Amino acid sequence: MLKRMLAGLLLALCSAAALAVEQWDVYEVELKGPADGNPFVDVQLSARFSDGTQTVTVDGFYDGDGVYRVRFMPPRAGRWTWVTHSNRWPLTNKQGEFTATPPQPGNHGPVGVRHVYHFGYADGTPYRPVGTTMYSWSHRGAALEELTLKTLATSPFNKVRMLLLPQSHGVDKHPPEHWPYAGTPPKNWDFNRFNPVFFRHQEQRVAQLRNMGIEADLILHHPYDDKREWGFDTQPREVDDRYARYVVARFAAFRNVWWSLANEFDFIRTKTDEDWAHLGRLIQRLDPYGHLRSIHNGKRIYNQAEDWITHVSMQHGMAATDANRAVLFREAWRKPVVFDELKYEGAHDRRWAQLTGRQMTHAFWSVTIAGSYGGHSEFIADADNHGTVWLGQGGRLRGESPARLAFLKEILDAAPAEGLDPIDAFDDLFIAGQPGRHYLVYFGDRAPAEWWPKLYLTGLRDGQRFKAEIIDTWAMTITPVKEPLQFKPQGRYDFVAATPIKLPGKPGIALRLTALDAPAGAAARPGLDD
Amino acid sequence: MLKRMLAGLLLALCSAAALAVEQWDVYEVELKGPADGNPFVDVQLSARFSDGTQTVTVDGFYDGDGVYRVRFMPPRAGRWTWVTHSNRWPLTNKQGEFTATPPQPGNHGPVGVRHVYHFGYADGTPYRPVGTTMYSWSHRGAALEELTLKTLATSPFNKVRMLLLPQSHGVDKHPPEHWPYAGTPPKNWDFNRFNPVFFRHQEQRVAQLRNMGIEADLILHHPYDDKREWGFDTQPREVDDRYARYVVARFAAFRNVWWSLANEFDFIRTKTDEDWAHLGRLIQRLDPYGHLRSIHNGKRIYNQAEDWITHVSMQHGMAATDANRAVLFREAWRKPVVFDELKYEGAHDRRWAQLTGRQMTHAFWSVTIAGSYGGHSEFIADADNHGTVWLGQGGRLRGESPARLAFLKEILDAAPAEGLDPIDAFDDLFIAGQPGRHYLVYFGDRAPAEWWPKLYLTGLRDGQRFKAEIIDTWAMTITPVKEPLQFKPQGRYDFVAATPIKLPGKPGIALRLTALDAPAGAAARPGLDD
Repeated sequence: MLKRMLAGLLLALCSAAALAVEQWDVYEVELKGPADGNPFVDVQLSARFSDGTQTVTVDGFYDGDGVYRVRFMPPRAGRWTWVTHSNRWPLTNKQGEFTATPPQPGNHGPVGVRHVYHFGYADGTPYRPVGTTMYSWSHRGAALEELTLKTLATSPFNKVRMLLLPQSHGVDKHPPEHWPYAGTPPKNWDFNRFNPVFFRHQEQRVAQLRNMGIEADLILHHPYDDKREWGFDTQPREVDDRYARYVVARFAAFRNVWWSLANEFDFIRTKTDEDWAHLGRLIQRLDPYGHLRSIHNGKRIYNQAEDWITHVSMQHGMAATDANRAVLFREAWRKPVVFDELKYEGAHDRRWAQLTGRQMTHAFWSVTIAGSYGGHSEFIADADNHGTVWLGQGGRLRGESPARLAFLKEILDAAPAEGLDPIDAFDDLFIAGQPGRHYLVYFGDRAPAEWWPKLYLTGLRDGQRFKAEIIDTWAMTITPVKEPLQFKPQGRYDFVAATPIKLPGKPGIALRLTALDAPAGAAARPGLDD
Repeated sequence: MLKRMLAGLLLALCSAAALAVEQWDVYEVELKGPADGNPFVDVQLSARFSDGTQTVTVDGFYDGDGVYRVRFMPPRAGRWTWVTHSNRWPLTNKQGEFTATPPQPGNHGPVGVRHVYHFGYADGTPYRPVGTTMYSWSHRGAALEELTLKTLATSPFNKVRMLLLPQSHGVDKHPPEHWPYAGTPPKNWDFNRFNPVFFRHQEQRVAQLRNMGIEADLILHHPYDDKREWGFDTQPREVDDRYARYVVARFAAFRNVWWSLANEFDFIRTKTDEDWAHLGRLIQRLDPYGHLRSIHNGKRIYNQAEDWITHVSMQHGMAATDANRAVLFREAWRKPVVFDELKYEGAHDRRWAQLTGRQMTHAFWSVTIAGSYGGHSEFIADADNHGTVWLGQGGRLRGESPARLAFLKEILDAAPAEGLDPIDAFDDLFIAGQPGRHYLVYFGDRAPAEWWPKLYLTGLRDGQRFKAEIIDTWAMTITPVKEPLQFKPQGRYDFVAATPIKLPGKPGIALRLTALDAPAGAAARPGLDD
């Protein structure tokens, strides 16, 4: 009720005077219009926003009870004007203006692709995803959902994969409070009418994530209607398209939204690859802000080369155990690769949920060395919390890896803005960084007692000195090496230091080398054939 | 001279009576036409061939001295008629007919893609590439070229990668006898006129390979004009297109031709990806037989998802050392993957030519387990043969791997016609085969003293028996295990045998399991999530 009142106030202000909204926050226009017929299908509404230089046209949507809304995320600070267009008189040619104020600290804008393989916010701040997955966390009722948010607040995770539509698993314990379409479960749906209450609730959760600095990787379709009774994944293209339009109109103004077309797309056997490409291109066309777009696989990998795909959202546990494997996907598609599913921490009877905390941590470090990113989740029943598991319902984290992923996140945040790129994947890739400036060396399970520093020559200068730190990825310690390393060229390909670094001789050890002297100017390169 | 006389005889016969040519061999029409002006540019010539059911239109080409030819590879046995079309009176509306006779043993037709990831000849015979590379073997003069053919005759290799245009490396020792364009080296070329003598010589070599049952992976462009003086790789699109048309017109009727657009395409900095896609689609359109098309990379992998690419021609030594790496490219593109360059056997100072024979053998076995194929070459100077190296000039093989690749080829030839596919790449891929029927288990460097037989469940039946053989990939021995294995289900994912197989405890050991009982009917599968 309070929310509705505030929205009314907003409308009143809009017609009276300019409102201020922060750049990259949501500016919302509320309009009264027809409630008869089927507004979801019959009424078209859009608005054109302009700051005199840039013009952005966005679709509005029907929010029930004769209320229509248009949402806009101002991409720049300054004065914006708007005018609506509709095929209904009460909704067309409405006008207003407002001021977008400069973003406050913590508001960096939406995330996009940077440096081919990495991510950054619109304001230039690098974004290094350390994601997690809780499929149905936002469909489980207030108590559990608030607990999940509380857990996230002290977790390392800055991206959440979540299903927009409910899944049937666990529904017996936590039936969804709201449903996306008008009608009643299990299958008496009117697919021509959305249920605005459902979407408002999801928006609330997405906005809360946004305010915590967490990206919402919104999964639009999934195969987890296990009893095949709801039918959300078996609709014809017309219904799917209308759903996509409605979702984009409602959510695109949230700066933290990413579009994940599907989870395990290949397990949704009612859609073809052509259907997915159609949907991806539709969303690409509808979304005026170009939020990130991906499609997540089960066993069969989608053609990640398609141009509507901004980054690779990969399920591949086997590839994520070794940088030498993981790096090949990056090479194959030349896009950022996020191993959103690299198996889960847990002791489930299914082999996709049997990672130890150490194995999960190792996988994250492995994909990091591959110049890619990892995604966490866990399948460990929380006995004190009705047996919930984080992967399905959120709630509380029980695993050993999150603390280590928080530690890794600190390492990532201290890396160069350009990201960590593989250094020399010719034989055995175990070093990432930026040539001549910053190196992260990861020994994985090898547990050496010492390492004779050897780096691929690109960017290095004869005599260049580096600070070295020994990192224990499990114990979460960083121990400086007393003496700086000094590098000299050796042979055709390498630079070496004269003395070895003593290491603890246990698994999960890494080294960080930071240049104390400027790198070589023009990168020295061997011949074409390497 | 004899060849010219025979061609004349052919022409006379054509106009007089039907000639017989074997299905999938080259049927050639020779016509006299204008020699003035520039026939390469001015004259268009094509012919339509029909057997009453199928119609194939092919381009003709100018072969110098007022002689024009049209070549046709009859795709079916039976009576074919033809009629020419040209923008010159003497060449148009010529007609003839001939009989295509059934193919003789050894003639299986052209190779195409089969079972998504594998290859087969047009007559249904499986084709398992065991390729090698001799870039300039056909530009080195009769003595060396004949020696190379003699070497190939007793080698395991059934595919040869070769540069159609000469490379400058080694030219001081073996200058090309002929040049592709009219003019004189190094750069006085008339790019509007081809040199037919050059192309006739290459055709002769391609035909000799064909007659030996060897596929010719013809590389159309390369970056090896080291001194950048000839300029064959710096021509505008118009010249490249004319070259492509001329090459297709001359070579497409040879059933053993594959089109490799480039070697190390990314080192040819004068062309864009768009140029390559244009060229690939042009060849796809021009070639009426659909010969295999690929593009080979240096450091940067081309977008192998493009639809004109029939199979992946990969340079990637690192990926080829482990089936768990190699299989990822197959998964990425769902096309056959041939690791045409997985580094070379040799002891060169460049690290791309430092594989031992054992390492080369291991790489071939690794990519085999990945359901992919390998490509051999060696960089070992042949001191008794003017220091030639097989990679560059052909000549003689000096390495230790070819014998082992011949042994591997026997294993491949004994595998199911559907090819060897990875069996369960969920954790650690070391088994390939066809579920329930045939398994090839490769232990690589692990050197176990025994193996407890365990197979992923798909296709297996409770109580099913298998014959086992121990394969030493280096010693080239196959030792039968006396007792058959009998498999029973264990746990959620596997079938196991009750007793271990004793193994030699050295590297490079494989096992072959062949079903003695029929496999399970419908493949038993675990749930969606595996």
